[in-house]
This record gives sequence, C-alpha cells and structure tokens, in this order.
Amino acid sequence: MAGQRADARRNYAHILAVAEKEVAAHGADASLEQIARVAGVGSATVRRHFPGRRALLEAVFSDQTTALCVRAGELVEHDDPRAALLEWLDAFAAYVATSRGLATALLPGGIADHEDDGTCAPRLSAAAQPLVRRAARAGAVAPDTTAADLITLIVGIVLATEQHPAPEPETARLLALVVQGISPRR
Amino acid sequence: MAGQRADARRNYAHILAVAEKEVAAHGADASLEQIARVAGVGSATVRRHFPGRRALLEAVFSDQTTALCVRAGELVEHDDPRAALLEWLDAFAAYVATSRGLATALLPGGIADHEDDGTCAPRLSAAAQPLVRRAARAGAVAPDTTAADLITLIVGIVLATEQHPAPEPETARLLALVVQGISPRR
Repeated sequence: MAGQRADARRNYAHILAVAEKEVAAHGADASLEQIARVAGVGSATVRRHFPGRRALLEAVFSDQTTALCVRAGELVEHDDPRAALLEWLDAFAAYVATSRGLATALLPGGIADHEDDGTCAPRLSAAAQPLVRRAARAGAVAPDTTAADLITLIVGIVLATEQHPAPEPETARLLALVVQGISPRR
Repeated sequence: MAGQRADARRNYAHILAVAEKEVAAHGADASLEQIARVAGVGSATVRRHFPGRRALLEAVFSDQTTALCVRAGELVEHDDPRAALLEWLDAFAAYVATSRGLATALLPGGIADHEDDGTCAPRLSAAAQPLVRRAARAGAVAPDTTAADLITLIVGIVLATEQHPAPEPETARLLALVVQGISPRR
C-alpha cells in the first residue's frame, strides 16, 4: 500500500510537471490529451488527477498562489500600509502578466467546465484583504474597496494587454494609472 | 448591373442581420457556418462578405461604433472637460458591457485570424482623443494619458466581469473606482 501511494505521488508529480510546461506554452487552452501524450499516460489518468481544465490550472498555479499569499501576510507588518498594498499589487500583477493562463484561471466562471469556481482567486482575495483593510484604515483606499475588486481589475488589465508586444511593463504602466486614478475628484 | 448590385446589398444586409443575432447570442465565438445556415446562403457567400471573424464583429458593431464616435464629437463642446470625458467613458463602458463579443473585437490581435487589426478600436481612440486632450489641458487627467489607454482599461474591466451575474453595473462600479484611483498619491 505504501508503495502504491508513493507511485501515485510520483505519477502526479510527473503529470503536473508536464502540465506546467504545456500551460506555459499554450496558456489556458493547454490540451489535457496533449499532456497525457507527453506524460506517457492515458487521458483517464490525467482526468483522474485533474477532473477539468480549471483543476489543472489551479494545480499548476498553486505553489505561486501560496507564495503570493505568504507575501501578503509578511507585508501586513510593513510600516506604511499604502506602500505595503501597492507592493503586493505590483508583485501580483507582474506574476499574472508573465504566467500564461493564470488570468483566465482567476476569472470566476471563466472556464466553461462543470467544476466549482477555482480556489486560487478566493485564496488570494482572503490573503490580500488584511492589506486592503489596513490601507483603508490609514485613509489610503476607499473604505468599500475589496481585495477581490483589485484582483479583478488586475486580471482585466492582463487580459486586455495579453497581445501587447511587452505585456508585463504595459500591465505595470496601466496598473500605475489605475492606482493614481484616471481623474480623481479634486 | 444595377439590379445585381441591389441584390448584393440586400444579401449583405440580410446576412448582417443574422450575424447580429448570432453574435448577440454567442458573442465573439459566433459561428460563420451557423450564420450561413440561418441566412440560407453558402459559407462561401458569408466568407466573401466577412473574410474572418474579426471582419464579422467589426461589421456587427460598426453602427454603434459610429454612434459613440459622434457622441465624442458632441461632448467636445461640453462646458466641463472632465464631466464630458467621464460621460463618454460611462457610455462606452455601458455599451461594451452589454454587447456580447464587442470587448473581444476591441482587443488588438485578440482574434486569431489573418486579418489586420480591427478598425473599431482605432476609430474609437481617434474620436475620444480630443476629449482626453481637453481634460488633460484642464488638469483633470495626467498629461500622458491616452484614449487608447482608457479604452484598454474599460475592455479589461468588461472581460474580467463578463461572468458576473450583473456585468453592466459591476463594470460601472469598477470604472468609478478606476476613475477615482485605487490609492491616489496624497
């Protein structure tokens, strides 16, 4: 039994490594069949580990999602609540802009399969919400702003600039514009 | 000859009317084959009028694009440059949020076919640019802000909220947040 479990873990790790490469190359459209072929396993094995496209993308981006959540927890200790929030938003935007398929994985219902909504977006929102609340208490963001709003805005910027020749600096530039506001009330 | 031209115009108008309904129902993924079937013509006829998906979407949204361009021209006469720009951005956002497929049509290179980039986005940018310049001269927007930037941000918000239960008010709410800024420098 222990040997079988170790085999299953190795199998999963191998399929996940292949999936990471395929998603890096093809984004959210990566094919489960192609992943099975490259990994040298049957489609049914891939589907047992990843029952749909969203489950696959969630698994591929899980470690980096965790890293971004940890970073949010660290930044809550930062002296300047506004600088802490903006640093996290910049880091999040840079990661989404450079990770093909992640913006799509973060869209609620953005992938038409029959699974529940993903877990990456709620995990990130929950992790960033204390940063947003702290910035709001300091008067640096409007009191009704939520982490989910800011994540949605950044996902939108990434989706709208995916075809830009330099998506990452373009995302950073437009995020800076959104932070300052198009035309804040004077 | 005159009769043939009149036939061709009626044929085009009929196919366009069918295309509008299919795009309203299926967004940017509307099928050229299905449009041909419903219109009762061959696929080749549809493809002669619309050589690709982008050409189809451009045609479907052409009249409303013109209306938005005309509105921008009228608003340049408005007393308050900031209010004029914001009124146009709100009108544009409401139209994009309620027009399935339009956000995708406005993405540069967002549709993988072999045509040049669409004409809707450049037409809208050119029409809105005087509003943006006038608002910048009045100190209401940063001097390096372009109409293309603002159109990209709104397209991004629409793409990120397409699956929201109430996309139009959600787009308006996030646009208001972006106008005010997440955290304008104090």
